[in-house]
Amino acid sequence: MSEHQHPLSKREQRARAQAYISQLQGETFPNSVRRYLHGERADIKVPVRSIQLHPTKHKDGSLSDNPPLNVYDTSGPYGDPAQQLDVLKGLPKLRLDWITTRNDVEASPVPPFHEIALDEWHTEFSHQPLRAKAGKTVTQLHYARAGIITPEMEYIALRENMGRTEQAQDDGMRRHSGNSFGARTPKVITAEFVRQEVAAGRAIIPANINHPEAEPMIIGRNFKVKVNANIGNSSVTSSIEEEVEKLVWATRWGADTVMDLSTGRRIHQTREWILRNSPVPIGTVPIYQALEKVKGDVSQLNWQVYKDTLLEQAEQGVDYFTIHAGVLKEYVALTAKRVTGIVSRGGAIMAQWCRIYNQQSFLYDHFEEICQLCAAYDISLSLGDGLRPGSIADANDEAQFAELRTLGELTKIAWRYDVQVMIEGPGHVPMQLIEENMTEQLKHCHEAPFYTLGPLTTDIAPGYDHITSGIGAAMIGWYGCAMLCYVTPKEHLGLPNKEDVKQGLIAYTIAAHAADLAKGHPAAQLRDNALSKARYEFRWVDQYNLALDPFTAKAYHDETLGHEGADTE
Amino acid sequence: MSEHQHPLSKREQRARAQAYISQLQGETFPNSVRRYLHGERADIKVPVRSIQLHPTKHKDGSLSDNPPLNVYDTSGPYGDPAQQLDVLKGLPKLRLDWITTRNDVEASPVPPFHEIALDEWHTEFSHQPLRAKAGKTVTQLHYARAGIITPEMEYIALRENMGRTEQAQDDGMRRHSGNSFGARTPKVITAEFVRQEVAAGRAIIPANINHPEAEPMIIGRNFKVKVNANIGNSSVTSSIEEEVEKLVWATRWGADTVMDLSTGRRIHQTREWILRNSPVPIGTVPIYQALEKVKGDVSQLNWQVYKDTLLEQAEQGVDYFTIHAGVLKEYVALTAKRVTGIVSRGGAIMAQWCRIYNQQSFLYDHFEEICQLCAAYDISLSLGDGLRPGSIADANDEAQFAELRTLGELTKIAWRYDVQVMIEGPGHVPMQLIEENMTEQLKHCHEAPFYTLGPLTTDIAPGYDHITSGIGAAMIGWYGCAMLCYVTPKEHLGLPNKEDVKQGLIAYTIAAHAADLAKGHPAAQLRDNALSKARYEFRWVDQYNLALDPFTAKAYHDETLGHEGADTE
Repeated sequence: MSEHQHPLSKREQRARAQAYISQLQGETFPNSVRRYLHGERADIKVPVRSIQLHPTKHKDGSLSDNPPLNVYDTSGPYGDPAQQLDVLKGLPKLRLDWITTRNDVEASPVPPFHEIALDEWHTEFSHQPLRAKAGKTVTQLHYARAGIITPEMEYIALRENMGRTEQAQDDGMRRHSGNSFGARTPKVITAEFVRQEVAAGRAIIPANINHPEAEPMIIGRNFKVKVNANIGNSSVTSSIEEEVEKLVWATRWGADTVMDLSTGRRIHQTREWILRNSPVPIGTVPIYQALEKVKGDVSQLNWQVYKDTLLEQAEQGVDYFTIHAGVLKEYVALTAKRVTGIVSRGGAIMAQWCRIYNQQSFLYDHFEEICQLCAAYDISLSLGDGLRPGSIADANDEAQFAELRTLGELTKIAWRYDVQVMIEGPGHVPMQLIEENMTEQLKHCHEAPFYTLGPLTTDIAPGYDHITSGIGAAMIGWYGCAMLCYVTPKEHLGLPNKEDVKQGLIAYTIAAHAADLAKGHPAAQLRDNALSKARYEFRWVDQYNLALDPFTAKAYHDETLGHEGADTE
Repeated sequence: MSEHQHPLSKREQRARAQAYISQLQGETFPNSVRRYLHGERADIKVPVRSIQLHPTKHKDGSLSDNPPLNVYDTSGPYGDPAQQLDVLKGLPKLRLDWITTRNDVEASPVPPFHEIALDEWHTEFSHQPLRAKAGKTVTQLHYARAGIITPEMEYIALRENMGRTEQAQDDGMRRHSGNSFGARTPKVITAEFVRQEVAAGRAIIPANINHPEAEPMIIGRNFKVKVNANIGNSSVTSSIEEEVEKLVWATRWGADTVMDLSTGRRIHQTREWILRNSPVPIGTVPIYQALEKVKGDVSQLNWQVYKDTLLEQAEQGVDYFTIHAGVLKEYVALTAKRVTGIVSRGGAIMAQWCRIYNQQSFLYDHFEEICQLCAAYDISLSLGDGLRPGSIADANDEAQFAELRTLGELTKIAWRYDVQVMIEGPGHVPMQLIEENMTEQLKHCHEAPFYTLGPLTTDIAPGYDHITSGIGAAMIGWYGCAMLCYVTPKEHLGLPNKEDVKQGLIAYTIAAHAADLAKGHPAAQLRDNALSKARYEFRWVDQYNLALDPFTAKAYHDETLGHEGADTE
């Protein structure tokens, strides 16, 4: 009854990806111009996409201009037609001067994994790992608490304003007050406000000193709601080329951060390619690689293997680590009566380890060492919810909330080390139980930013879980969740391909924007108003170009109505 | 950057639709069995789809059965493999005996429109219009108030229970309490409960005596949340064949009612084809046809043309009419400062008529005559929100709420005539303003069922408005909206084709089910639990078959992982 195109073979997919990344050119959207916002420092220029609009034609034949609309742009150099791109060399090292000028870092000594061969891929990456000088802490939280406004904070202030100080604040159209559930987004974001939010732990700037290619961004409920896209190959699918293609594609379609969840062979090489070419912060789940190192045998995992993995990834430049340190030995029994047990892969690995050795989790026991390591590179912690519910039935149970309270304790420990922290959340939650997730998280985790996977609001639609979860994501974003981890149509069924990445991101940029509107973000409604005005005035091309996906909007219109205009409804 | 297949030509689309409907065979979903639930009367048999499941394999090699899961089935005879189908003859007249046995109807005299030629399409429809005998009221509301439990009510009680009295009430898995915002759905729905809800005006059974082919269903917030699909051709697109194909397709994918919004030529014939072949209630917007009759000239519209149109549609068998009688002359000025003015087509027509003549709306002035006509056929009124907002900016404004209060007055008038009523709602509403729509509707419209279009929670994603609005639909369904009018990916851009109908319905059955879960519908979570259990036990085939769209779930899985099993996450 349903029709699907025959999927490409693995060889075809890889060849297509190789062609895509080798011919990359900076590209923006139709009728959009890449602009840069400037602050007081000459070396800070923040990209925005400026959508150019046609004038309104009045009945008397006169015209009135519609100002261009600036929108937040995650695509980095890939969104700049003037940019020369070469994935073999990687992106420019935007932050390197800022990092070295602070005079608190030094070149790392060369550990063995620096020698992992990349040259069979003919790369020309020029990455030289840095680390904090002895006794120094190099985190944005450390600077914020010391009252220092970093260039990263200045950059973010400009970026979060989305140029709205430059464009008409008042578009003459009605805008609604939000209901922000206690979030407070000022009309104009200053660098000092960014600093205060980071200092308070309410927001994080994931920015490893070894990932200077990334453009600074912030995750916190008093800022624009963010979206993460998961990519990563596995032993059965995908290639490095495809992962780089998905990375570029993800930033084009609005990913604020990307998690590389690769498993299988070439995990180090894949990550190196991703980091050197990523304009957005990169997160990982280090236990995945640690497990590869012990050939998948959980009983062989230990603190040393894990610590080496953290160090390896720290020096490559991973911006945030998902660490399932809240899966305590005593919580495992709480999952016994669940319908779907433990569905977090990291959570399941740690639960199994605890059972094998009848010992407390080595992640929990060594948490302070983890913090010390993160403080030396400015890696943010994303405290994983290893006991998140995997089904509607298991939502908001004692296992989940017991772990959440432990994540709150760990947050305080991390903050003692000036390490930035966010908290991961579920998963699968029916609508009436979503708000409790947010209020419990705020209460037990001291307002550290929340970062949820969906949640899915029903389990009955595999193949459409970007929709089942887009509903929950919009709602929890409204309630205060700072970043939404996308779910693609392939969730529960397979690994996302390039088209799935796009579909997941469209659903989640919708959810994030709906949340910004509902919270009353001062600038969010400008885009809705501009698009609605274009629609009402039959400026079809402007309507497409203001849409999240101009190509699909135009194609759908042309399919039914040809290139002529038609009624709006 | 985005790829779309070249759409079919109009000729190809029509030929494909013709082949589809001429070769129709009753068909159910993979591993599903069409079953019928029986009540006390021999002539009541209610279809359910019974999804057959595989046993659980335990570690010791033993097996334990998983009971089949019954799900609500809107597909009528099209979902029964044993059924002989012929679209030229139409569906069996399921309710005809019930209608005639009540002894309150008679054959209609033959008005001119009975002679509109259908025979160039070679149909063999045997429709003989009925009407109430003089002085009789034949509405389900009338019977309900008189204390009569009709066969329709018995049918609905069985249907709403979805066979859950037959299957294990307790699946052994955790189920959540809902937050129902005042809705009260009993654990077991009795026919007496159905009668009470109809008598109170809190629910309606759209069931024109001239549409005996339709299977009874109910719309009210103390029942399962329903979904409507809009179809209909226009002067530029589609054919009768395609509309019948979309009708069948819509009922297969979960449409509880279908609205035929056809315009252009052959509007009567298209509707006749749809009615004679529809197992679900059909709604229309009669002003569309009235306007065709005066060749699109609004100034030529008048009460007589409109009344004749109502009568024509009443005798064909339309189950509910959308009537924009709340667009009062004095409200039009309230829309002057809107971003998107009046976007409801019916609302715009009536506003224009009021402006031309500077008179009160003839729909408002003749509302009691409309009620008299509806009472003679049991046509439900769907009081249209002609001033619904067409953009986020215009949500919840005075124009919208002024009309809503008038709809409340009209509800009381309709109830005086024993006419069933539901109220239409928006449209475009940011999340923080959705709940107010529901509470205002309940308050001003005396708990008559609410029936909303979405609402879209943002305007920035044309091409994906099934998602922007699926979010709002799930939320307002939770708050108490009784039926959700779907929005397809083509909304604002073009008319939905068959695939769009499916995509819209999947998004909206997700929204309706998420709402049922959140309200605490006693049986909703059975399906989530069954699917989650299948997922956890790696019963892949069961997971597909329990999904809303088994075909897509399986295709996505096979695309990545081949036909072998794999990890759940």
